[in-house]
Amino acid sequence: MVKNDSFKIQAPVILVNFKAYLEGTGEKGMLIAKAAERVWMETGVTVGVAPPPTDIRLLASSTQIPIFAQHIDAVVPGSYTGRTTAEAVREAGAVGTLLNHSENRLQIADLQISVERARQVGLVTVVCANNPLVSSACAALEPDFVAIEPPELIGTGIPVSKAKPEVITGSIEAVKRVNPSVRIICGAGISKGEDVSAAIKLGTSGVLLASGVVKAKDPEAVLLEMANSAKSQGLQP
Amino acid sequence: MVKNDSFKIQAPVILVNFKAYLEGTGEKGMLIAKAAERVWMETGVTVGVAPPPTDIRLLASSTQIPIFAQHIDAVVPGSYTGRTTAEAVREAGAVGTLLNHSENRLQIADLQISVERARQVGLVTVVCANNPLVSSACAALEPDFVAIEPPELIGTGIPVSKAKPEVITGSIEAVKRVNPSVRIICGAGISKGEDVSAAIKLGTSGVLLASGVVKAKDPEAVLLEMANSAKSQGLQP
Amino acid sequence: MVKNDSFKIQAPVILVNFKAYLEGTGEKGMLIAKAAERVWMETGVTVGVAPPPTDIRLLASSTQIPIFAQHIDAVVPGSYTGRTTAEAVREAGAVGTLLNHSENRLQIADLQISVERARQVGLVTVVCANNPLVSSACAALEPDFVAIEPPELIGTGIPVSKAKPEVITGSIEAVKRVNPSVRIICGAGISKGEDVSAAIKLGTSGVLLASGVVKAKDPEAVLLEMANSAKSQGLQP
Amino acid sequence: MVKNDSFKIQAPVILVNFKAYLEGTGEKGMLIAKAAERVWMETGVTVGVAPPPTDIRLLASSTQIPIFAQHIDAVVPGSYTGRTTAEAVREAGAVGTLLNHSENRLQIADLQISVERARQVGLVTVVCANNPLVSSACAALEPDFVAIEPPELIGTGIPVSKAKPEVITGSIEAVKRVNPSVRIICGAGISKGEDVSAAIKLGTSGVLLASGVVKAKDPEAVLLEMANSAKSQGLQP
Repeated sequence: MVKNDSFKIQAPVILVNFKAYLEGTGEKGMLIAKAAERVWMETGVTVGVAPPPTDIRLLASSTQIPIFAQHIDAVVPGSYTGRTTAEAVREAGAVGTLLNHSENRLQIADLQISVERARQVGLVTVVCANNPLVSSACAALEPDFVAIEPPELIGTGIPVSKAKPEVITGSIEAVKRVNPSVRIICGAGISKGEDVSAAIKLGTSGVLLASGVVKAKDPEAVLLEMANSAKSQGLQP
Repeated sequence: MVKNDSFKIQAPVILVNFKAYLEGTGEKGMLIAKAAERVWMETGVTVGVAPPPTDIRLLASSTQIPIFAQHIDAVVPGSYTGRTTAEAVREAGAVGTLLNHSENRLQIADLQISVERARQVGLVTVVCANNPLVSSACAALEPDFVAIEPPELIGTGIPVSKAKPEVITGSIEAVKRVNPSVRIICGAGISKGEDVSAAIKLGTSGVLLASGVVKAKDPEAVLLEMANSAKSQGLQP
Repeated sequence: MVKNDSFKIQAPVILVNFKAYLEGTGEKGMLIAKAAERVWMETGVTVGVAPPPTDIRLLASSTQIPIFAQHIDAVVPGSYTGRTTAEAVREAGAVGTLLNHSENRLQIADLQISVERARQVGLVTVVCANNPLVSSACAALEPDFVAIEPPELIGTGIPVSKAKPEVITGSIEAVKRVNPSVRIICGAGISKGEDVSAAIKLGTSGVLLASGVVKAKDPEAVLLEMANSAKSQGLQP
Repeated sequence: MVKNDSFKIQAPVILVNFKAYLEGTGEKGMLIAKAAERVWMETGVTVGVAPPPTDIRLLASSTQIPIFAQHIDAVVPGSYTGRTTAEAVREAGAVGTLLNHSENRLQIADLQISVERARQVGLVTVVCANNPLVSSACAALEPDFVAIEPPELIGTGIPVSKAKPEVITGSIEAVKRVNPSVRIICGAGISKGEDVSAAIKLGTSGVLLASGVVKAKDPEAVLLEMANSAKSQGLQP
């Protein structure tokens, strides 16, 4: 297995999970990705998107922003049906992958393999966790990012960065204790610029969000406000 | 939900599951799909392919053969991460989907929903089963096809049509009793033209196979031999 | 594998799933089982209970009513951890098992094996299904009973026998078409005697219920009322 | 939820997983548990057993050795079918539970909840891990013990303590870095006294094993040899 160089994600990052929303599928997802690209070009803030697997190639070939898979399976290429390999998403143009989202939780041994498989092909890994204890366990598996998301706030519009700051700061401490090289982003309920700047002030490297952008009337306006708020906190290497 | 018209599959059919093989991923999968297209044009025998989800759009936009997903999830579009919806694979250009492959077994209630979701968007369903009892249970869920595959023969090169003909004829009888409108194909160990004609003589509408083509030195030669053998048994509507 | 004779369940049957309720665990479950036994002795109506696996032996050795497992795994005895075999529940004294409850859905191939494993050791099988299509698929797997339970009514107190009689009659028709030797019971929202008699009038052989008895203030009074209502519809062989 | 005091496990410990072996089920399992009790009384070395859930109460009421569940689910008592709660196994007499065995791998968020649920009712937790990275992730979840078991050696008779000592020492280091209060045992291929003393010399608090005792011709003789070897390394608090 050739070790590819991973894409470098410049912080702060705004990562938009398209989930299985119709508004994020196919041509509609393309419109959001194009908007994200314009926001990145205008602000310099990294805006990545995680479309359905069927759209990774389309978005990767049509935009210059980082494209993430929503999941990769804990397998090497071979006799598996309905599985998504690190190699397949990499060849389609993804630069990273989400893993262990609260809507797609993984067995701990599989998560370790998926992180390793991603690194082997040069994919950045963003491992989701639901609380500080699980965050620190995920950090032990050596991903690039841990994304802390209290599942009870997902899709609510109540921002984790304001409603549960102690979950974020607790996760940051727990992760740093176990593995200081892991960066932390946070998500759940993020829908405005001030939610993003609050997240960065707490010590994160950015946010993971979904419906706040994908189901917004004007995704580009929301992204632009978020990117400007993020930028006001300073760009990092 | 708009009910789309499903693609009509003309029998006999040769359906090639690319699985998660590197030889069936990305540009390499494209070569096999192009070969399949030439065989179809030369023989008139339907040759479909089921690539990884990341390649559905690429193959559907580059060839005229039927493209299948390897799986769709039992969900309507919405707040799901790492799931593959009927809508996403349909928009990417697939005309059908495998379901319940022995490498991706589904809960019975989910399988029923996935078959229904596929029909709602106009996808042909090929539901895999491992023995006659399970075949008849799958037929009760009203898919278009049941694909009978004894898992112990998958990838062995020992063709089910010769090694276990009674599993095929038993499944055909069991399926017809439960739901006579369901068509049957078979798989496992299929690697030659004679395996295909033997399957059709037993009463099937064709074959589902994978490594016999995907890992062959000359996939086009194997497909051409299979298609000619299938054609010798007569084309059906 | 020695084929044991299965326990014969006389209809109508009232089957109480203790689930993982504290009120149905250990000594508290014993009180309900003892109440069920008195109701059976007084009315002649079969009252069975399905306690947690840890309590099967206790209840089977202390009462004469039929004890069911809530689940058995699709494995033969061997190198499996945290699995429940047909042999283990049989030796502990169970006479049957629930399978595929909506809170514990099984892969279709596993469900077929579990039904077969149960029959091999002489356990009666009650396979749960959520709608008529899934009921007929389950019937194809040759269980003793199909229990039709619309999951949206479970635990609501709105009885399926009154709120969705067409789901019950539709399932009865679908099951009879596929496998006329399978008996049908129904569940979800059953909490009174009239719910039970309504279920029997629709053509079922009885009911599967849980909170209506387990969480009742006086489980024995509820069971007695149900058994008398069932009895008013006539005992069957 | 009342916090019960956990059972204190004196090291070294020999923990025998009965799995789903017929030789460890029901009356046969009782014979092994009785043998384990005699070995403990003779040597003073802690010998615990993990029978199927159906036998926990039988063994706990008939012997004085520590009885472990093989698994508990990540739920509080309630509307769950086929699940095993911490409360149910505790009431049946268990003092601890295995979790995340390679034959029963858990999602990381569920594993965190199961460890917490066990602690809430006073059950000792032994979380299995397959390599040093996963061991350290498990340690972050604050169990009492991590049991390191390379799955490729399970059931082989090739002892991990001799074949892969670096996996054990690597896990010990990784665990201590993340959470120094977690104790480590090891397993896979353990079948003789010298395998046990080798494990203790590497720094573990004992062993987890299964077929080496359960399928032995004379389980008591094997256990006695193991306990004497363990004792030769010194008893610890």
